[in-house]
Amino acid sequence: MSIAVIYGSTREKGNTEWLTEYVISGLPVEKIYLRDYNILPIKDERHTEAGFQPVLDDYQVVIEQVLKHEILIFATPIYWYSMSGTMKLFIDRWSQSLRDKHLPDFREGLSKKKAYVIAVGGDNPSIKALPLLQQFQYIFDFFGTAFEGYVIGKASKPGDIQKDNKAIANAILMQKVLAEQLKSLEKEKS
Amino acid sequence: MSIAVIYGSTREKGNTEWLTEYVISGLPVEKIYLRDYNILPIKDERHTEAGFQPVLDDYQVVIEQVLKHEILIFATPIYWYSMSGTMKLFIDRWSQSLRDKHLPDFREGLSKKKAYVIAVGGDNPSIKALPLLQQFQYIFDFFGTAFEGYVIGKASKPGDIQKDNKAIANAILMQKVLAEQLKSLEKEKS
Amino acid sequence: MSIAVIYGSTREKGNTEWLTEYVISGLPVEKIYLRDYNILPIKDERHTEAGFQPVLDDYQVVIEQVLKHEILIFATPIYWYSMSGTMKLFIDRWSQSLRDKHLPDFREGLSKKKAYVIAVGGDNPSIKALPLLQQFQYIFDFFGTAFEGYVIGKASKPGDIQKDNKAIANAILMQKVLAEQLKSLEKEKS
Amino acid sequence: MSIAVIYGSTREKGNTEWLTEYVISGLPVEKIYLRDYNILPIKDERHTEAGFQPVLDDYQVVIEQVLKHEILIFATPIYWYSMSGTMKLFIDRWSQSLRDKHLPDFREGLSKKKAYVIAVGGDNPSIKALPLLQQFQYIFDFFGTAFEGYVIGKASKPGDIQKDNKAIANAILMQKVLAEQLKSLEKEKS
Repeated sequence: MSIAVIYGSTREKGNTEWLTEYVISGLPVEKIYLRDYNILPIKDERHTEAGFQPVLDDYQVVIEQVLKHEILIFATPIYWYSMSGTMKLFIDRWSQSLRDKHLPDFREGLSKKKAYVIAVGGDNPSIKALPLLQQFQYIFDFFGTAFEGYVIGKASKPGDIQKDNKAIANAILMQKVLAEQLKSLEKEKS
Repeated sequence: MSIAVIYGSTREKGNTEWLTEYVISGLPVEKIYLRDYNILPIKDERHTEAGFQPVLDDYQVVIEQVLKHEILIFATPIYWYSMSGTMKLFIDRWSQSLRDKHLPDFREGLSKKKAYVIAVGGDNPSIKALPLLQQFQYIFDFFGTAFEGYVIGKASKPGDIQKDNKAIANAILMQKVLAEQLKSLEKEKS
Repeated sequence: MSIAVIYGSTREKGNTEWLTEYVISGLPVEKIYLRDYNILPIKDERHTEAGFQPVLDDYQVVIEQVLKHEILIFATPIYWYSMSGTMKLFIDRWSQSLRDKHLPDFREGLSKKKAYVIAVGGDNPSIKALPLLQQFQYIFDFFGTAFEGYVIGKASKPGDIQKDNKAIANAILMQKVLAEQLKSLEKEKS
Repeated sequence: MSIAVIYGSTREKGNTEWLTEYVISGLPVEKIYLRDYNILPIKDERHTEAGFQPVLDDYQVVIEQVLKHEILIFATPIYWYSMSGTMKLFIDRWSQSLRDKHLPDFREGLSKKKAYVIAVGGDNPSIKALPLLQQFQYIFDFFGTAFEGYVIGKASKPGDIQKDNKAIANAILMQKVLAEQLKSLEKEKS
């Protein structure tokens, strides 16, 4: 029973990561920093005769790592009112995995997971991040993944997030929910 | 007086391009296919002492080309209810241009432009693309760019778009509006 | 085979009605002007022992009239970025009909209908009406009603709508779709 | 320095009121229960020669009461993914107040106020209430009112809200913010 945190930040130890630390503190987590991997834009080859061709980058390693976990936390700074390009590249490639015979359970696997979103931005994110959350909901709906919760943080400069009491309080609440979910998942298995 | 079309598709002659052809037919347009360029994810160096560092890719060439035009059309397939990763990488880099001393008029320049969006997707885009449109609105609001119109198309397989009468009718209407805008921009200048 | 138009306007022959006339021209339509009826705000008695009590107003007559038709068009001016209060009063009462033993097929009946929305407003409706459309989608999703299409019009003063070429073109397209749907519904029945 | 709570519920002591009590506990508040007043749907007479005519109901009393306060809390159950019809009737009438010569400072008055929203619903409100929040943002933007915060609660049956730890935690946070705002408003005045 464990959690994968998928980080879309390009900056080390930024506000998004600081807030996420509150959420995952003490929990069994694998941290995946997308910035450490080379993930190329998807080539839409859905409709070519040969279908999608293998891509020489790190995507396959990352997605297989992600799929090992029961709970996924998408932690992204809000760039231009949306997820970071780094995270978008990763998610766009799911269209390829959907047709990948080496990942026959991709869709069904995602349908059984629980998802969380942590998003931090500077420009009125409590309202202007709502389209981003709706997009995540549509993505999770596509797979049947349960969208269990989100935290929106407000921060621009390094350290700003430490002043966002509301985000911190909600991060702590998410922490509790995650701890309980892990416990009950353990019980189901045993 | 001219128009830049910024294509976010990864596929040649796909549905998004087909629909966009209706819009730009007969108009003075420069087509920029982002897939032909190497654009790296932004490194958020806003808060480092040295600031943003030069990046060895094609972004600078593309943004300077875009800025030459008065009207911008963002033409993107809808990937996972959002703009393509290819287009997102391009827009994310605007954060760097905002602080680029070689582009001192970046923000003011964009404030004077008119913007259009053409978005094509397969999964109920007339509703599920609305968050994407709201995000474009927030982006344009940030700069003061006028968001003059959009067309949403419904298509999955190659050629599907040709059956979307509503999208085609709206593309033709957008064509007329663009032609009139170009005329009145000409007059203003002369 | 027929269509009910549910008008939420408080003004006679306003912009919303003008645009709707384009849509329904020549089609078998029953027009229901909510302003002509007395519909009281719902009293939330879901959780009282006795449940909902009969209400002395015109709601029951109106909802029964609506339910006779296969296709529903909700035509509302956009008041404060939402449907008119008049229309909201009517829809709020659906919570009562869901528990009304005299309407045992209320939910299932709505699940078989097709729905359209026509909304006209003055303040950038092509973007600012998007939340309203999402709410209609959530309502229709609740029942399983098919949300077949919408037209957004831009107008403030009387007559303004006649200058909105885009809305008129889309109204005409909706007209065609409705005509075809009626035909194929007739065939199914015969 | 004081707060007006504008209640849109039709039920006494329901979940919305319970949650709001957490927010306002110990603060100088005037509670306005819209259900206690008779407020008629707006008649759109903006464009008639004579303009809006006086209406024989309680709206005027209520709006004048609301305008006396510096901070407004809109507390509404979520009916059909939107504010209650009762609250919508009240807000629709603002279009009349905008043209009311007895309220010459209506618009400017609202521009100086701070606004909060408390919304409670049963069907995945953390996502499905987002359009409602965006509509409130558009309303507040229209006047220049500061949208200072919101709490979304999840509850259907009486008492359900008491199990929503997240909503309660956020209500308590909102309480603190309000207490601080009142203090600093006092200082400004003295």
